[in-house]
Amino acid sequence: MTLDADMTGSARSVAVLGAGSWGTTFAKILADAAIAADSPRAIRVWGRRPEVVEQINASHRNEQYLKDIALPPSITASTDVREVLHGADLVVLAVPAQSLRPQLREWKGLISPGAIVVSLMKGLELGTDSRMSQVIQEELDLPADRIAVVSGPNLAMEIAREEPTASVVACAEPAVAGWLARSCTAPYFRPYTTSDVVGVEIGGIVKNVIALAVGICEGKQMGDNTKASVITRGLAETSRLALALGGEAKTMAGLAGLGDLVATCSSPLSRNHTAGRLLGQGLTLEEVGQKMTQTAEGIKSGQAVHELAGKLGVDMPITAAVVAVLAGKLSVNQLGTVLLSRELKPEGDY
Amino acid sequence: MTLDADMTGSARSVAVLGAGSWGTTFAKILADAAIAADSPRAIRVWGRRPEVVEQINASHRNEQYLKDIALPPSITASTDVREVLHGADLVVLAVPAQSLRPQLREWKGLISPGAIVVSLMKGLELGTDSRMSQVIQEELDLPADRIAVVSGPNLAMEIAREEPTASVVACAEPAVAGWLARSCTAPYFRPYTTSDVVGVEIGGIVKNVIALAVGICEGKQMGDNTKASVITRGLAETSRLALALGGEAKTMAGLAGLGDLVATCSSPLSRNHTAGRLLGQGLTLEEVGQKMTQTAEGIKSGQAVHELAGKLGVDMPITAAVVAVLAGKLSVNQLGTVLLSRELKPEGDY
Repeated sequence: MTLDADMTGSARSVAVLGAGSWGTTFAKILADAAIAADSPRAIRVWGRRPEVVEQINASHRNEQYLKDIALPPSITASTDVREVLHGADLVVLAVPAQSLRPQLREWKGLISPGAIVVSLMKGLELGTDSRMSQVIQEELDLPADRIAVVSGPNLAMEIAREEPTASVVACAEPAVAGWLARSCTAPYFRPYTTSDVVGVEIGGIVKNVIALAVGICEGKQMGDNTKASVITRGLAETSRLALALGGEAKTMAGLAGLGDLVATCSSPLSRNHTAGRLLGQGLTLEEVGQKMTQTAEGIKSGQAVHELAGKLGVDMPITAAVVAVLAGKLSVNQLGTVLLSRELKPEGDY
Repeated sequence: MTLDADMTGSARSVAVLGAGSWGTTFAKILADAAIAADSPRAIRVWGRRPEVVEQINASHRNEQYLKDIALPPSITASTDVREVLHGADLVVLAVPAQSLRPQLREWKGLISPGAIVVSLMKGLELGTDSRMSQVIQEELDLPADRIAVVSGPNLAMEIAREEPTASVVACAEPAVAGWLARSCTAPYFRPYTTSDVVGVEIGGIVKNVIALAVGICEGKQMGDNTKASVITRGLAETSRLALALGGEAKTMAGLAGLGDLVATCSSPLSRNHTAGRLLGQGLTLEEVGQKMTQTAEGIKSGQAVHELAGKLGVDMPITAAVVAVLAGKLSVNQLGTVLLSRELKPEGDY
């Protein structure tokens, strides 16, 4: 392995841990970016299930998550994490948020010293209220300038179909953000860089909770006026939380804040949006879980966001209402009333 | 007529000038607000066409614009503007933006001294680049503290169906904003107040232009990632214009900025969104005009916004691209490329 110590080039050997829709799609982006830049790059995907791994290797497909999308042949897969991580200068983490910490404890010794570790995950850890970059920092004992986050209006299936998409790459160290941005610039994928890791992560976490609220409104047949109000106030409470944690307002107004929120709340492809819609139609949380093949992360992260907001004294009424619905303490019929029942007052105060 | 000089009550006699979908719906809001507050209020609507006026009076309907919605009997209509304006302490203007100035010249002598004048219009005047509140101020010779603006995520048809909706009432004089907010608080309509008239107007004007861009993307079958990026960057360029004119950033992040933009860009009910979609599908501007019964204001205001931005030195790339498409200088096939073709750089800089 040759690490790119001065960060002037791009990634040469990549490990993607997680073969779900976003992990596999990001592997495709990294492969297509290398092809476009005419620079050699090996991309190895780790998956838990042998049938998924075998399909990627044998037919360059991941049908369960990406249907008939053809993956570039530079992507290989394995169930052996040691093999996948060997020599990787870029390690991409794309596992369910709540299982990241135990996974990292298994993987710690296998990651090359000096590798850049990137989180694609959008969740807050239950119990600790930690962001994914914090879990990575703690468990891998890495400095912040080697940990990055990618987030934005990035519905995986659309990117897999090569529809033009913009995104945000965040790292405390601008040289690392630039290196990663170069590594993942594909003809259909355009990353912007920022050093606001906190803002980018909070935007990605809370949007799943707001998408649940918007989904519930849709399930209750409410109109676009109501949904737009919930999105607007949802971004306002997301921004309050991000600012309280040291994030920046401009990040919330950008692709990883507003952009991701709008994409998620518009799309029938979003799991959280779909889960909310099913709840709004009257299904129980258990029935929603049975209907969906992939995790709706907002259901788990919502509780952690609510706790974190409480600790920091940040007012997040939409999150509180969603958590109450999920806990069975508020019916979906009451949600709309709760969201719109405020006294007449100046707008900035809501 | 008794004017409410200290602005502690609410409107008693209202003239709504314009019997289109938003004018008629706002008349309904004002009527239902009075019923809810148990305070008497006469609401007279002026319309140009006798058949519309007659239908409102005879069957409490405005079928061309609001289908089978029943209007409260406290709403009457007339083609005689003198009769409608007589004694009104609240004058609501809801005519096409580009015809406001000549209309006001006709109406000036008929408006009661001391009346509050409210604009529901979302357009910038071609040639002068004036906002509607500026046209009102100039033509009626009124102080700014008697002119208000109502704007927000307010698709008229949804409000007419009494779906819960929030909105923003803006006036330089907070007491007038409060008076108007009390006058239009209906069980399904919740106004917030602000003194940022410029921000509220700019949000309402530019969103029509951005909605054209989003509509074109949809017509070209682009996905939700792309649309969310255009909305995000569209709000960023709207904010730059508003700030250059003295508006406030928090207004752009609120219901009259982000909220209105998202509602318009989500809804099949939006005229500008629809016009953009037809353009994206390959129709000419003329064909689009023939297909639509109501004006897509963004088509006219776009040019004025582009000129204003040029004068102020504000970068508005999406508006510029939309204006180029409307002028036949850029094909809809090139629009996506133009919108996404920027160099890799920090996000705040775009």
